[in-house]
Amino acid sequence: MDAQQFREFGKAAIDIVADYVDNIRQRDVLPSVEPGYLVDVLPENAPEQPEEWKDVLKDFNDLILPGITHWNSPRFHAFFPSGSSYASIIGNILADGLGVIGFSWMASPACTELEVVTLNWLGKLLGLPEEFLNCSSGPGGGIIQSSASEATLVGLLVAKDKTIRRITEVNPSLDEDVIRSKLVAYTSDQCNSSVEKAGLLGSMKMRLLKSDADGRLRKETLKKAFDEDIAEGLIPCYAVANLGTTGTCAFDPLYELGPLCNEYNVWLHVDAAYAGTAFICPEYRHLMKGIEHVDSFDFNPHKWMNVNFDCSAMWVKNGHDLLQAFDVQRVYLADTKTDTKIPDYRHWQIPLGRRFRAMKLWTVLRIYGAEGLRSHVRNHIDLAQYFAKLARTDDRFVVEPEPSMGLVCFRLKGDDIATKTLLENLTKKKKIYMVAASYRGRYIIRFAVCSRITKKEDIEFSWNKIKQEADIVLSNEIQGKMKIPALDHIETVVFSEKSK
Amino acid sequence: MDAQQFREFGKAAIDIVADYVDNIRQRDVLPSVEPGYLVDVLPENAPEQPEEWKDVLKDFNDLILPGITHWNSPRFHAFFPSGSSYASIIGNILADGLGVIGFSWMASPACTELEVVTLNWLGKLLGLPEEFLNCSSGPGGGIIQSSASEATLVGLLVAKDKTIRRITEVNPSLDEDVIRSKLVAYTSDQCNSSVEKAGLLGSMKMRLLKSDADGRLRKETLKKAFDEDIAEGLIPCYAVANLGTTGTCAFDPLYELGPLCNEYNVWLHVDAAYAGTAFICPEYRHLMKGIEHVDSFDFNPHKWMNVNFDCSAMWVKNGHDLLQAFDVQRVYLADTKTDTKIPDYRHWQIPLGRRFRAMKLWTVLRIYGAEGLRSHVRNHIDLAQYFAKLARTDDRFVVEPEPSMGLVCFRLKGDDIATKTLLENLTKKKKIYMVAASYRGRYIIRFAVCSRITKKEDIEFSWNKIKQEADIVLSNEIQGKMKIPALDHIETVVFSEKSK
Repeated sequence: MDAQQFREFGKAAIDIVADYVDNIRQRDVLPSVEPGYLVDVLPENAPEQPEEWKDVLKDFNDLILPGITHWNSPRFHAFFPSGSSYASIIGNILADGLGVIGFSWMASPACTELEVVTLNWLGKLLGLPEEFLNCSSGPGGGIIQSSASEATLVGLLVAKDKTIRRITEVNPSLDEDVIRSKLVAYTSDQCNSSVEKAGLLGSMKMRLLKSDADGRLRKETLKKAFDEDIAEGLIPCYAVANLGTTGTCAFDPLYELGPLCNEYNVWLHVDAAYAGTAFICPEYRHLMKGIEHVDSFDFNPHKWMNVNFDCSAMWVKNGHDLLQAFDVQRVYLADTKTDTKIPDYRHWQIPLGRRFRAMKLWTVLRIYGAEGLRSHVRNHIDLAQYFAKLARTDDRFVVEPEPSMGLVCFRLKGDDIATKTLLENLTKKKKIYMVAASYRGRYIIRFAVCSRITKKEDIEFSWNKIKQEADIVLSNEIQGKMKIPALDHIETVVFSEKSK
Repeated sequence: MDAQQFREFGKAAIDIVADYVDNIRQRDVLPSVEPGYLVDVLPENAPEQPEEWKDVLKDFNDLILPGITHWNSPRFHAFFPSGSSYASIIGNILADGLGVIGFSWMASPACTELEVVTLNWLGKLLGLPEEFLNCSSGPGGGIIQSSASEATLVGLLVAKDKTIRRITEVNPSLDEDVIRSKLVAYTSDQCNSSVEKAGLLGSMKMRLLKSDADGRLRKETLKKAFDEDIAEGLIPCYAVANLGTTGTCAFDPLYELGPLCNEYNVWLHVDAAYAGTAFICPEYRHLMKGIEHVDSFDFNPHKWMNVNFDCSAMWVKNGHDLLQAFDVQRVYLADTKTDTKIPDYRHWQIPLGRRFRAMKLWTVLRIYGAEGLRSHVRNHIDLAQYFAKLARTDDRFVVEPEPSMGLVCFRLKGDDIATKTLLENLTKKKKIYMVAASYRGRYIIRFAVCSRITKKEDIEFSWNKIKQEADIVLSNEIQGKMKIPALDHIETVVFSEKSK
């Protein structure tokens, strides 16, 4: 393919994307395919000879699109948003066109420096304390990780390394493997599954502590766990607080957990994957009160901030901790500089290679402007409130807990069977997509406002589908015709599978 | 930004990329900027109001491009190639336009299934044994990881989990932490730094064993290490063989290491990050003789196969091993299916979220066809041979070891100072970019053919720059004017920093 063909193919692809967004409401949000549908229709072998780009685009339309779950449809209310925007797509075109790998400053200076700058911009927009920012005088700074999963694991590995160093400095005779086996991590039972997985991957016991009735991890609970473990000879090492839990978007009180973790020398990481974006609006910053006690903070612009996956923004108070943990000191790998002002980002992350991901963050921040992004957040929250209002006008429904951010949880009155049936039926009909969670022991349905193009009419469309289905479910119930839904099936789509 | 503006902005971005590639030879391969150049010129804060896309593109041209190291320039001979192609860029546009997250089959069936299909295609193109392929009857299969670093770490974590299970099945009373502390991993001293880092991240001792005079890890060396460790009560667990080492592109003999690892119950992972692409040409498959003994195999289409980062293709013989190690079994996360035929890929990787990366692999395979990709590989190897031929016509140069794939290593005759000076001077002049390595104790310069658009004339251009600089260096040496180069500076650019 030469440059001229690329110009044609590329522009056709741009039009396909624009048309896709323009017409997304015409598609069912869930695809009507069975496992293996695509495996069955595609050839068994790669083509030997080059194919025409028009044929590729034709197959994209005819074979790929029918198998897509439309995360950016205004009828997609499952999990949390998967960020995507025109500005982000174009940022990626530019980054892919350059095709640089930014593992060190000199591997492409602009790649590293644009990341430093955009994470300073973003940290300021969120109102993070200055010590997290590269532009402060200290060793803090930000980095783009691939996912909140990876950020949680990075935090855990750094906490492990730091704790072992702290203990062996005092007791040089202690065996590192013995210390390692005693380290414990903590989070709440409302954490995303990726937090639990970080414990598994990092070989650290991860305790999922009981949250309070509002889904928040409280100080007394965490303190009790620390003390219990210390009494057993274990070593509290790492805690993950959730700002915006996956199930109900609850916020752990950092002002309680932070001072406690500081007192016990426990690294406190914040997973604000979805809700972190809201902090660009000053009116929501009270939800991160106590942030100054935290060691690392991560949220996903690739969720609610219109940046395409992968772009998980992580800040740490002390970049030296990452260097200590991740720098592979081999003779031929000596750094000219190990300062954190213009970092060699390969020491701040798990892989060596990295894409120019700051480009799409930059294009999004510029094309939207801070005010544009704040409007986007406020619009989603308003739309969620609007949905809650509609649901509350119907006395067959209970909205609980209180809507939080762009998420509204609800159920039908009565036992859980009706609510489960409602969700199962709606999923089967494929017009709207939601997933379940639990709240105070009750089965609830999560309605998340996800698409950046969602309008009031879309909320009404979804609400009407829910209401109509409720008519059927409740009428069957009254007539004794309701079947017990296949719970196993429902369980597979519940909240912990959200994108990270 | 509305759809119409996106059509304009997007098409302008396509033209910028095409123009960039068309004119890439006019740019110095290395940028003339100092650390902090971009931080200094960009605003301290994100814009409050939306900006015009034309201003963003202007800044891309005026501010970003001057700070780029042009990995896709035909004068870039450092590290290994960073894959990029028109077909790949367009694959990404389509994937970004959909913006789906493919953590499970139902999260977007086409996203998972296209990955299954393209990795079957690719595995067959490489000539991998059928048991690695999803289309076989067994539990094997392929997955796209972000990087070879991640694949090596995944292999290590799975090997750790499997070894612990194997031992505790026989001895249920043994403490898992004790077993874990005794596990040992092995690779050669020629491994990429990311392999050593995997040991660090996975808390497993990683022994870098001495390679032979040709840079290969041999059976006797590995066997001796196993036996020594077993005698000390340790447990050999994981070995990484390198097919195409970073320094000199040497190939570990799998036919020696494979049966040995099988005998000792050690998981054998193959890191073929760069050279793996060559196996699409049958004439190079003899270099992976013994592949049937391997447990996992990884190479980077995002290096030599014209796919943009990130796309690291990994196959395992037994997908159940990954499920065992990575599946976070929580009540609300029960799978409807845990078979490996249509996998829920979140259980095969570290993060929960994942992009639709199979799209760009698919567009590359179709737009090039297998023959197009083979031509690309053969062309690079021919160009490397051509460079070696040119260097050998000049009796001031030594080419050693024998060129391997697209990599030629060379030095000036005499002591190492002249070669070091040559590289340092060339790097300062920014016209071509190479990095160093060592071979049999000697300092050598690596000349890698990297850009997909490289022609014979580009090789002649680079060779002439080298020859002209050698004239200056050697004339200064004769006149006693040569300065001892700043070795520390040179060391920062050596081979182990390649992209992974």
